[in-house]
This record gives sequence, structure tokens and C-alpha cells, in this order.
Amino acid sequence: MSKLDTRIETSAESNFPTPLKYAGCDPSAAIRYRTEADRIRVFPSISTELDDAETVFERSGPRAFITGDPAVMTAGILTCGGLCPGLNDVIRGLVMSLCHHYGVKKVLGIRYGYAGLTPDGLPPFELTPDCVDEIHRDGGSMLGVSRGAQEVSVMAEQVMALGISKLFVIGGDGTQRGVMELSGELQRRDAGVSVVGIPKTIDNDILWVDQSFGFDTAVDIAARVVTDAHVEARSTERGVGIIKVMGRDSGFIAAHAALASQEANVVLTLESPFAMEGPGGLLAYLEERLEQKDHAVIVVAEGAGQDLFQSLEADQRDASGNKLHRDIGVLLCDKISAHFTDLGKPVKLKYLDPGYSVRSAPACGTDRIYCTRLAHAAVHAAMAGKTAMMVSRWSGHYVHVPLHLVTQGRRKINPSGSLWRTVLEATGQPCLSGDKSGTKV
Amino acid sequence: MSKLDTRIETSAESNFPTPLKYAGCDPSAAIRYRTEADRIRVFPSISTELDDAETVFERSGPRAFITGDPAVMTAGILTCGGLCPGLNDVIRGLVMSLCHHYGVKKVLGIRYGYAGLTPDGLPPFELTPDCVDEIHRDGGSMLGVSRGAQEVSVMAEQVMALGISKLFVIGGDGTQRGVMELSGELQRRDAGVSVVGIPKTIDNDILWVDQSFGFDTAVDIAARVVTDAHVEARSTERGVGIIKVMGRDSGFIAAHAALASQEANVVLTLESPFAMEGPGGLLAYLEERLEQKDHAVIVVAEGAGQDLFQSLEADQRDASGNKLHRDIGVLLCDKISAHFTDLGKPVKLKYLDPGYSVRSAPACGTDRIYCTRLAHAAVHAAMAGKTAMMVSRWSGHYVHVPLHLVTQGRRKINPSGSLWRTVLEATGQPCLSGDKSGTKV
Amino acid sequence: MSKLDTRIETSAESNFPTPLKYAGCDPSAAIRYRTEADRIRVFPSISTELDDAETVFERSGPRAFITGDPAVMTAGILTCGGLCPGLNDVIRGLVMSLCHHYGVKKVLGIRYGYAGLTPDGLPPFELTPDCVDEIHRDGGSMLGVSRGAQEVSVMAEQVMALGISKLFVIGGDGTQRGVMELSGELQRRDAGVSVVGIPKTIDNDILWVDQSFGFDTAVDIAARVVTDAHVEARSTERGVGIIKVMGRDSGFIAAHAALASQEANVVLTLESPFAMEGPGGLLAYLEERLEQKDHAVIVVAEGAGQDLFQSLEADQRDASGNKLHRDIGVLLCDKISAHFTDLGKPVKLKYLDPGYSVRSAPACGTDRIYCTRLAHAAVHAAMAGKTAMMVSRWSGHYVHVPLHLVTQGRRKINPSGSLWRTVLEATGQPCLSGDKSGTKV
Amino acid sequence: MSKLDTRIETSAESNFPTPLKYAGCDPSAAIRYRTEADRIRVFPSISTELDDAETVFERSGPRAFITGDPAVMTAGILTCGGLCPGLNDVIRGLVMSLCHHYGVKKVLGIRYGYAGLTPDGLPPFELTPDCVDEIHRDGGSMLGVSRGAQEVSVMAEQVMALGISKLFVIGGDGTQRGVMELSGELQRRDAGVSVVGIPKTIDNDILWVDQSFGFDTAVDIAARVVTDAHVEARSTERGVGIIKVMGRDSGFIAAHAALASQEANVVLTLESPFAMEGPGGLLAYLEERLEQKDHAVIVVAEGAGQDLFQSLEADQRDASGNKLHRDIGVLLCDKISAHFTDLGKPVKLKYLDPGYSVRSAPACGTDRIYCTRLAHAAVHAAMAGKTAMMVSRWSGHYVHVPLHLVTQGRRKINPSGSLWRTVLEATGQPCLSGDKSGTKV
Repeated sequence: MSKLDTRIETSAESNFPTPLKYAGCDPSAAIRYRTEADRIRVFPSISTELDDAETVFERSGPRAFITGDPAVMTAGILTCGGLCPGLNDVIRGLVMSLCHHYGVKKVLGIRYGYAGLTPDGLPPFELTPDCVDEIHRDGGSMLGVSRGAQEVSVMAEQVMALGISKLFVIGGDGTQRGVMELSGELQRRDAGVSVVGIPKTIDNDILWVDQSFGFDTAVDIAARVVTDAHVEARSTERGVGIIKVMGRDSGFIAAHAALASQEANVVLTLESPFAMEGPGGLLAYLEERLEQKDHAVIVVAEGAGQDLFQSLEADQRDASGNKLHRDIGVLLCDKISAHFTDLGKPVKLKYLDPGYSVRSAPACGTDRIYCTRLAHAAVHAAMAGKTAMMVSRWSGHYVHVPLHLVTQGRRKINPSGSLWRTVLEATGQPCLSGDKSGTKV
Repeated sequence: MSKLDTRIETSAESNFPTPLKYAGCDPSAAIRYRTEADRIRVFPSISTELDDAETVFERSGPRAFITGDPAVMTAGILTCGGLCPGLNDVIRGLVMSLCHHYGVKKVLGIRYGYAGLTPDGLPPFELTPDCVDEIHRDGGSMLGVSRGAQEVSVMAEQVMALGISKLFVIGGDGTQRGVMELSGELQRRDAGVSVVGIPKTIDNDILWVDQSFGFDTAVDIAARVVTDAHVEARSTERGVGIIKVMGRDSGFIAAHAALASQEANVVLTLESPFAMEGPGGLLAYLEERLEQKDHAVIVVAEGAGQDLFQSLEADQRDASGNKLHRDIGVLLCDKISAHFTDLGKPVKLKYLDPGYSVRSAPACGTDRIYCTRLAHAAVHAAMAGKTAMMVSRWSGHYVHVPLHLVTQGRRKINPSGSLWRTVLEATGQPCLSGDKSGTKV
Repeated sequence: MSKLDTRIETSAESNFPTPLKYAGCDPSAAIRYRTEADRIRVFPSISTELDDAETVFERSGPRAFITGDPAVMTAGILTCGGLCPGLNDVIRGLVMSLCHHYGVKKVLGIRYGYAGLTPDGLPPFELTPDCVDEIHRDGGSMLGVSRGAQEVSVMAEQVMALGISKLFVIGGDGTQRGVMELSGELQRRDAGVSVVGIPKTIDNDILWVDQSFGFDTAVDIAARVVTDAHVEARSTERGVGIIKVMGRDSGFIAAHAALASQEANVVLTLESPFAMEGPGGLLAYLEERLEQKDHAVIVVAEGAGQDLFQSLEADQRDASGNKLHRDIGVLLCDKISAHFTDLGKPVKLKYLDPGYSVRSAPACGTDRIYCTRLAHAAVHAAMAGKTAMMVSRWSGHYVHVPLHLVTQGRRKINPSGSLWRTVLEATGQPCLSGDKSGTKV
Repeated sequence: MSKLDTRIETSAESNFPTPLKYAGCDPSAAIRYRTEADRIRVFPSISTELDDAETVFERSGPRAFITGDPAVMTAGILTCGGLCPGLNDVIRGLVMSLCHHYGVKKVLGIRYGYAGLTPDGLPPFELTPDCVDEIHRDGGSMLGVSRGAQEVSVMAEQVMALGISKLFVIGGDGTQRGVMELSGELQRRDAGVSVVGIPKTIDNDILWVDQSFGFDTAVDIAARVVTDAHVEARSTERGVGIIKVMGRDSGFIAAHAALASQEANVVLTLESPFAMEGPGGLLAYLEERLEQKDHAVIVVAEGAGQDLFQSLEADQRDASGNKLHRDIGVLLCDKISAHFTDLGKPVKLKYLDPGYSVRSAPACGTDRIYCTRLAHAAVHAAMAGKTAMMVSRWSGHYVHVPLHLVTQGRRKINPSGSLWRTVLEATGQPCLSGDKSGTKV
């Protein structure tokens, strides 16, 4: 295993005593403050000899010394990209911790993502514990979101003009790239501003996060739609249910929704390419399955099967720089419908696309807890002066991840890993790559 | 860090080639079979130098060789103790994997826990993929449960009489002790039977499991009741809501339900003793809080505050050997009601006890996935001949844990750990031990 | 309206005596068989001459003329008694209609019920469309509630002092009696104040309302708990589940929750008295059922079986004047447990009491619609100057009911009507009055 | 029945003209104001002489005499058309009542609708209380469904060949037409077969049913999607959410989902035609609304706005004879998107289509009760020999409706009735017909 550079930069020196005091009921059990020696192993799984210099992440939590007097500090919060269950919980947790735990003077809510850090953006408004007290019951983001980057120097000026010294940015990998650049710009200007990222992705595709917040909620919603499709497919002769779920660059929602519903027979993702036609392809497998079981349920990630569109025009991208996709759900419907009609054995096809519904719901219980813990970890990190970093959960522990690691790509399902193995075990689907050597489980 | 003995015993030699075949779509990405060199670090967090002999758990997953021909094998499944969301998902996953993945000849459902392994028990019945196909939609256990141990030699004889060579036992720490004893007895008889435990506890209190299945579901239900109590408390003048939740020996449900609801003001658990009377005690804090906020919500674990019952008669235990508890919920209601009436400022007290409702629901999406993966892991382990072990998830990875580690105690909330720190951060509750030195967060 | 041909054809002659046997506990309440003379009017709404022979309710809706200029009016809203799903929806609907539809100058929220109309109460605050916009997502009442009446002349003075000319009072039958008295007092003072009641009862027991708001929500929650008890009872040998639900003076929640869950075997209500002991009593029936089915689920209304408490001290009442009840749930547990232990066939008893949880949830979709329509109807009525009345839904239509009709008693399940017949049909329970003449269905 | 005093008092004279202005799109459909002559009968049920002047429906319930000995009877059940929440509850209720209440010898489940009454259909299978005991927990129909009619004489022969004397047919208006024809054919053959229809329509559009079963469930699901769209629209600048829901011939789901969510700003249905362009049209209203509120949520029934498709080719119909519709949701997205882009003020448009998800869920509590009561009513009717009829709920009572009334059309929202008035009141939407005379509420 190669060694990673996991050191965390700081924006200012930590020399002011924290106002925090924890007290367990047993004096001997008092919560101690973290030091840089508290670490989480990056690779808890090993299969070779260890060299003794470990690759570790810094562990999150309150430090004994922070960067200055909170009574004169201003903090800022912004949310970028698409919605995700739990955004309001993270905002609430940040405000509660900044105000109640540290007594920070002022917390500003930046409107509509990075756009709120430009002269054209709506002005920020003050966030207080009272005004965020009940926001966790609602989906969405009380601050609003927007896609796309803004000029870094413009944003740095705005941050400094607002007097912000702790900036929290909630967003995906593109957003975290912005955090890295903004943090660098502010350091070049010697502004003494901590910029801390909080990873947000409905697709669970950010690197170095064991699972992103809101994902449990999204999977629960998507799984219910898989069950709906199963009910439809079972209620008619030769019923085929197709569910398209979010997942441009990775198939985590598709895989988890299939497992959570227990009703999927085929899962199609970007990570495991499939052939439509020919022996060993999807249509051939459906023929076989319908013969045996008279129904089939297919869960497809929106990023799957893009190679099946013959003449995709030059790379098209949205405002966030995400590659635009052809609609694989519609393609599947067309191809399957035509194929079985041609065979003289038409199927009854029911297509379901929950779309935005998987991301606009309020967070479920586990996600609420996770969001609260991430938010508290982010505040502790920023108060200790950490910057150009992202808080994360890794192997179940809260850690600091340097942003240069996060922006190197997107997390994908490992097609030879245990998650995908469970999908294959649970659906019974064979290799669909059309490769003759593909053997069935 | 001291070295643990984590070696796994085997009941028979593994020398029969597995019928399993996985095939990823990319030949280079084929799922490889596990070996004993695949390990998960027990302690992913470190804060000292490592000595190079690591303490590790064996990693679960399919092996290249198993213990014999599945076509002539009989497996058995039984569920012990109280209900838990996901029991049916585990049963379903075991049957599906035994039958579909390995082609095991017969799977027997043992009725009502260990009682089904005695001559007086109801006879087992055969479990097939068809009969378990839809059981995940219902709460409970299709096999029935019972509390209490049975004579080990009697059970061993029954297992052998039924021809079972793979026995799966789903239950808590008491049940796992039974698994260890039964496994030992069967080894003494040279019966060649793998006995694999699957950890089940609604209280999340089994050692060496990062979180037990069904717990997410239970927390979601309990959190809703906390919200109900909050609504009641907020709707009257001087409203106090008290919610008692399960948790005899640990306060995990109480802590998580409080965090998931975001509405609790005080969490009381066994792990953090509290004083009722006097300065720094619960009543004094409630006075203060009602003065400031006019309402309060208290979440109490059933095992909390047992020291407050003055003359608890000699240790009473239920059929599973669990210590019987006095009702702390009722005590809190009585004390708080009387205290404020005496003060001339009576409160309006609303008491809620969801009781069995947190454990009889069907599993939520994440729990379903977890149960399926645990079940598959258990089958792979048993097929490889592992015995006297429990499958588990540790740092997010599926592993084999020897039972002598599991039966050494019960898992508790670490009062100086990060979970309890988050509870203190989220509720703002002070140290309630009555110790004058207790300082508020 | 032209006459429709509503005759029904028959396929064969009916001359075989039905095998059905219903038996209410009171011979005079036996469910009678229908004949062709039992008919329902196709057109319940009429608009012919006012003084014809029909007993009718005035239909609600906007009138062409109202009592004055809304631009100078003040309205007031208050909520009394216990919580109920939908209270916030009614408040929201009232404010939206008063402000948006009529342009009323000011709407005052009275705090904590009638207590807010006394000099000791908290002062009212202004309600605007903005401040009520999102309250429907939360359970409870944003205004707070309290039990108990206040001096009518004091309240009348306060209403006049606040300049309120349209007062909306949401509450149960006791509250509506207050509306009638307050309305009379204000008319005696020639104050020109419309006082309009909106019926609220979690128990569905107000006269002349076809179903009260929040009841669908409450039933859904209670039914889930019945299912929980069923799951528990089915998971052990000789399992008995007992669920106590709200319903002091009527058993509507018990009956509906039993039907909605489809899992109840016995429903016990005030309206159908039952014997505990002896042939034809509850214990005897349970013996029989456990012999046949090995489990039983009992749903009991809190007001049922009060005659079984031998020495109930003199009539005790709460602040609202409701009779206090002995805990029938606990009595059932004790009696059943002792009885079967004495028989040498102990049962495993699981007791569930959802308590306040059935009333603190946000309203479900149908209740939201109902609340909105009731609120709009109440505003239209008050603007037209109606007073001493209650808005209601009757046969599916929104109407005005004079309060002297409402305060004459409480609505109960008719033991010879079709709802109770469906309960008997669905549970298969016999007459449990212990009357030897009681025959089983 | 004695006459009640139902007069309503007034607190002041009504002589000020109301500020309310409603405007339907068709001047003839304007919502009219109520007068005191608008009344609802207090007692919709009567049992006086049969031949009086009233138009009445026969009331359902058990009769003292039935058509023969149940011990030798065979009954049949079939489900037609699309899925609907509650289908399994109806099937369960029929089987339970036939077997437990009447002791009918055999109940046959006909497969896949009317197709199961043809020689090519799958053979029926026997339904017992055991096999239907748990089906109410699942959505769909355990019997399967199909669209389309079959030859009446073929079906009649099959009914007679199977020895069925009580046939229950669950389906929509097309299906009920089949019931009428099949019933007539069987009467012509003097077969002595009762054919009883049970109304099923996800769109709530069958005549003479006060609300169809499953509708509460469907509305709850659709309302959640409206809330999702609202959350999306509120989270961006100039956000527009569009939700398309089922409702080919009537807009009941759209209207109810809008009211249940409380978040819709515009409801579009077939019954209230709207103009897209021009003053008073939808686009003009959206411009105004976005200027004021920066977001808008539109709920559209699939049957709305079909006149906007310029060249709809000759009437296309599906297998059930339902007219095929152009996709109004897609048209709205295209038009709105283009319009605001052309104006230089592009909107962020989020489109949601829950599709089949509103109909494949298990029934909610109220729908379960309704289904059970309908099923029992149908059995009582058939046992009494009724035929060519449909059971129904009317004004809250269960009745028998002759089929010639049911097949005369489809139920629609009355644009001058109180439901649509509530939609206008709740959304604040103006008349969108483009008619200059249209005034805003």
C-alpha cells in the first residue's frame, strides 16, 4: 500500500484556551481533548506485511486550544449543488455548535451556494439557534442551493468583506475543489480564514467517505419504488418493471435500493457494463427469466449503459460540469418492448422514475445523527484552525481528510468487492457483458 | 494495546471445491475468494507506536474450498430471545444463500429458539426459497422465539438426530454463550457440525459488533415517540415529556433516539449515573430549564437509575437470565410530579413508553441490506467449516469473531467517547451526578 | 331532481334462512337483518322551500353579504382540551381564509385555550399567513392548549376588550358548551360577536359530526400498534397481545384500529359490556381461542370494563370534567396472566399502550384536506354573522349545527349498527357478556 | 323521527357585500354563493314505505333469507383493470365473509381479470381464509389483473362450467359494464348466478360512489410528491416544480393531492380548461407569481390540457378503451422552460411524475376499513340473490346501486362545487382560461 500524504494544513496558530468543558459523571471518565496523535487507520483491512510508518487520518473532535476568541468571530455557511436529505440537519448542527458550544458572535447564512459569495448574489442573513430550531423536519436547504463555480478571487474578497473567519461549505466533489481553491486563495492573502468542507452527494460517490449523509434516506425511498415496480410486474402476465434511479458516475443507489427492497432481479450500473443484444446480453437473460418466472424487475442507475447510445454528441455538461446523460431508462423500455413484441411475446412494461423524490425528503433517524456528528466535527476542526480539509466518517470514525485526496476522482462500486458480490448473490443475475465466458452465479 | 486471541476453530477440514462461480464483467475484476490472510484491523484507531504483530479479525466471504458436498447437507436455523427488526431478513438471506448459492439439500426451521432442539419442542419444518420469499415484509420471526437455555447434551443429540451439519443461531449474548457450549459439545462428539452465531440485540449491546441489525429501525421508531413527547410538552404550560425506551444494560437506544429526534433535553442511561435530588441533580436542572424554556423532554433507558430504588430485593432475573428492573419511567413521573407540586409549580407530565413497538416492526432499508450481508457471511463461514464463532460487522467490514470474546460482557456507551460527547453537545445537559464539581457544557 | 330507477334485480329467490348469527350483549341491541325498506336517500342536499317538513342542517359556504368591512375586523382563534392531529391545519386554514380571502385586518392567536381569555393568561399574539405557512408539518397546536372552563363573563369582557368580532374555538363537547355560553353572554351584551365552534375530539365522540378531524391519522397510528402486538403474539407459544387505546366514552378508536390492522381477535369497548369470568366471558373465550390458534390479540378502549373495578371510589374527574378511569389494560393483563397460570398453561403476555402517540402526530393527507375545508367553512359562517353554532361534516357535506344539539351527550358506537357488525364480522368474536343466550358468529 | 330545531343564530346583520370573487373558466360554471335555502338532510337513511316519492338506494347488509344452502355453493372473484391500493383487502374480505360467515363450500380466484373466464386463461385456484390471511400487507392483486373485455357468452359459459353461483367483479366503469352484460347473459340463460360489482378506480371517477377505495392512500402518496416538488422549487432561485398525477378523465387526485400537501400554487385539470398563452393564461400568471414569490408549484392531472396538442391524431385508445393522452407534463415543461428563457429570465424546472407509485402501495388504515366493509356488503348482497348491481358507499352509508346508473358516464369535479372552490381558496389561483372576464380570488 502506497503512503498517502494526509497532513492537514492550518490557517492560524492555535493558542487560545477553548471555552468547552465536558464532564462525565465519573471524574475518571472525563472526555479528553484530542491531539494530533489520535488517528484512524486509512486501511483497516490488510493482507500483507505492514511497514511501520502508518497512513492515517487525523481524528476529529475538540482541541484544547483554538484559534482566537469566539466572542468576536463571524462564521459563514453555504450549501452547493443538488439537494440531499440532511442538509438542514447539517446547517442546524453547525449553528447550534458554533453558538451554543463556542459562543461565536455571528453566523451568516450565504444564499444559493457560491453565488452568494459574489456581488450579484442575494445578501447573507444571520442564522441563530432559534431560527434553525425546527428546520430538520423539512427537506431541502433553508439557504438554497446553486450549481457552478464562481471566480475564486471574487469569493475571497467577499469572505473577507463579510469578516468571516470560519467558512463551512457543504457540497460534492466539484464544490470541494472550490473549497480547496478558495482556501488557497485566502491563505495567499494571509486572511486567517478556515475553510472546512462537508461532503454532500446523493450518489455516495465522494472519495474517502465511508457513506455520505442522506444516503440511507435516499435508499429507503428508492427501495419503496422498486417494491412498487415489483408489485406492478407481479400483477400482470409477463410483467416487466424498470426503475431508473440517480447515479451518474456510480451505481450505489441502484445497488442499495435493489438490496433494500429484496425485489430486484437485475441491477445495471456504470461500473459493470452490460450488453443489450446477443447471447449473454440483457435481452437474452430476460427471455430466460420471463420463461421461468413470468416477471422481472430491473433497477438501472442513470449513468449505466451510456455506451449503448450510438452517436452521443460531443461531451455535454451541466452548470456543475457533470456530464449530461442520455436517458437509459427510456432506451431500456424501447429496446425491451420492441424485442419481445418482435418475438411475438409482448411484455407489459411499467417504468418508474422517482427522480428528485429521493433527495428532497427530510432525513431519516440515522442520517440525522450522522449529520449532527459531522457538523459538530466540522466546527471543532474549524475552531482549531484547520483548513483546506473536509470532515468525513471513515471506518465509522470521524476524521479530517485533506482536500487534494478528495478531488482526485469519484468513488465507484468495486466490481470485485463485497457490495457488488452481495448484489450478485441477492439478485442471482449473471454476468451480462455478453462475454461468452460469463458464468452464472 | 494488548493482543487478543482471534483465531477461529474449524469443525472439519475444507477440501471440497465450492460450486460458487462469480464473474464480473471485466475478466480482470473477477471476485476472488478469500483466504485467511484477508484481515480487518480490530483497532483502526491508534495513538501509539505499533508493535508489528497485529490483532486482526478474519474477514468473512466465500472460500475456495468448503467442507463437503452441499447436495447431501442439512442445515438448521433458529432464533432466540426477544424480537428484533430484521429477523425475517436474516432467515430469508440464510435460506436463499444455502439453497441458491450452495445448493444445500435441506434447510430446517427450528421452532421457538433452543426449545425446538429438545424432545418437547415442536418439530422443525422445511424452509425453501418459496416459503421465505416474502417474509421480509413482516416483523417478528417466522420461526418463533423463546427465552432461556436448554441442556446442551440434549440439544447436541437433537442436532445430530436431525442430521444437521450447519447450524445458524440468531440471538443475543446469552444465546451466543449457548452457541459456544453447543459447539464445544458437538466437537467433543466429533460430530463435524459448524455452529455459527449471528448477533441479535435490540439494545445494540453485544461486544465486537459495530452496530447490531434492526437498530436503525428501532431508533427511527423510538425517535418518533420522542418527537411525540416533545409536541405534547410544547403544547401546554410547564409541559414535561418522559419517554422510556428499551436498554437494560446500555443506553444506546436512548442516546440515538435523542439524537435522531433532535428534541430531547435530557438523556438518562445506566452508563452515566444521575442524582435525583440536591444541587446538580435532575430535579434541580429541571427547575432551571422550566424557568427558562417552560418545557422539557427526558429520554430514559429502562436500565438507568436502578440505584434510586432503595430496597431492591435480591437480584431477580427473567428466563434468559436478564436482571429484572424496577420501572424507572414510573419513578421519574412520580418524583418529578411530586417535586413540582410541592414547589407550588405543578407540571403537566406526559409519559410515553413505546415498549415492544420498537422491536416488532419490519426492518428499514439499511437494516435489510445489513441482514442480507450478515446472512450471506454466515453461510460462507459455515460452508468453510468455521464454528464456535459469530459473524459480525466491524469498522464497516464483515468479519469472524471467536465466541470467547463475545461472551465476556456487554457493550456499553463509553461515557468519555464521542457518541456520549455528541449527546451532551446536542442536548446541552450538564453532568447530573450531583457532584458539585460537575460543570455544564 | 328527476327520479332515478334504483331498483335492484335478483338472480334467484331468497328463501333459505341465513346461517349468520349476530348477538349483541344486550338482547335489545341485537343486530337486526336488513329488509328492502332500509334505504338511503340519493340526494341528501336540498334547496326547496325552507319551511318544509324535513329536518335539515344549513349548508356551509360563502354568502354574498357579510356583517361588515373586513378591513377593520379583528378575529381570534383558540384551541382547547387535548391535542389532536390537524389542529395546526385548522389554525392555518382559518388564518389563510381570514387574511387572503376576506382581508381581515388582524387575527389574534389566544394562548392555551380558554385560559388565554382571562387576565392571568399569556397575552395573545398576531397570526399572519407567513407565520402559519409551515405549521401543518408539525403535530400539536402552535397556540397551546389547556383543559377546563373559565368564568364566562370574564371571557366575554376579554373578547370585547381585544376588539374581537369573530371568535373561532376548536375543542370537544365541553369546549362547545363553553362556546354556547360565551356566545349567549356576548349576545346579551349586544356585542355583535360571532362565536363559531370547530369540533375536535380524538375519540370521534362529538354528536352530529360524521367523523372528527384527526381521526384517520389516529386510527392509522393505533392500527400499527395492533400489528406490533400481533407480531409479538405470533412469535411465541401461547402469545397474547393486549393494546389499550384512547376512548373514554366511546370505542371508535378501538373498533377502527382493529379493522384497519385486520389483526385483532377481540375488541372491548364501553358500548358492549363484557364479562371477565364464567362461561361466555372473556377468559373462557381466550381459552378456546388459544387452544385453536395459539395466540390472541385484544384491543381495548380505555373506557371499557369499568364495571369490573369492584370499589371505584366516588366519581373522580379531571380538569375538563372527564370521568377518571381505572386502568383496564393493567386489569386485563393481571386477570389473564393469573387465570392461565392457575390453569397450568401460562401465556406470554405483551402489553402495548401507544398513549399520547395517537394524537401528537401531524395529520395525514385526508385529515389535512378535511381540516382545511372545515376551517374555510367556519370563516364563511362567521363572516356571515352566524353564532352559537359549530361547523361540521354530515353525510359528507359541510353544514352548520346549532350548539344546543351538540351538547346533549356524546356519540357512541351503536351496538346494533353496521360498524359494530363489521367488527363482529372481522374479528369473529362472540358475545362476551357472559349471557348464556349469547351465540357465536 | 322527531323534528330537530336546527336553526342557526346570528350575531349581527349581514349587509356588507363579500370581498370574495370566484371565477370558474366557464362563466356558466361560476361558483355561486350559498343561501339559507341550501340544506343537507339530517337523516339520509329512511325506512318508511317503499313506494314514496323519494329517490333512494337500497341499503346493504345481511338479509334473513338467502338464495340457497351455502354448503353447496361455489363463489368466484376476479379483479380487472389497473392496480389500486386495497385490492387485496377486498379479496380478503370477500373470502373471509364467504367462508367464515356463510360457510360457502368453495371460493375460486379467477386469474388476470376477465381473461381468466376464457378457455385461454390460466385456470382458477381455490381461495381459503389461510391463503388470504396476510395478503392485505402487500400492494397489488393476488389474482392478477388485465385490461379489456372478453366475449360475454364465452364468459357466461365458463362461469356456469365452474359451477359459480356468486361472482364478484372488482373493477372500473368499463368492468362494471361487463358485469351488467354478463349478468344479463346469465339471467337470459336462467343460470341463477348473482354477479355483484365492486367499484375500483384510482381516479375516483365512478358514478354514484362517494369516494372509491384506495383513493386516500393514493392521495397521501401523491401529496408527498407535491411536497418534494415544493422543496425543490423553494431551494433554488426561480424554481418551478411540476407534478403530473394520474387522472385521465377527472382531476380528483390532482385536486386532493394539492390540498393534502398544502403546497400547490396551481392545479390543472380536465374539468377546468386553461389557456397557456396570452393575458389570463398560465404563463402570464406564472410570470406574476415568480415576480412575487420566486417559486411556483403546479399539479397537473394527466387528462388536463389535451386541447393544447394541436394535431392529435384520430382518437387512440388502450386495451380497456381508455382514450390515450399526450403527455401534458412534458408539454408544460417545454412551454414554461422556453417561455422564461425567451423572456431572459430562465427558470429552474423540476419535473416529478410518481406514475404507478400512487397505485401499487398497500392500503392505508381508512382504506382497509372501507375495503373490508365493501367486501362484506357485497357478500351479503350476493347471498340475498342481488345481481346486475354494484355495492357502493353513498353519503357514508353502504348501498346497492343498479348498474345501468353506473355505466352512464364518469364522475368529474364540479367546477362550481365546493371541492373546486376549496382548491381555488387554498391555492389562490385565478381563472386561467384566458377569458378577460376571469377575476382573481
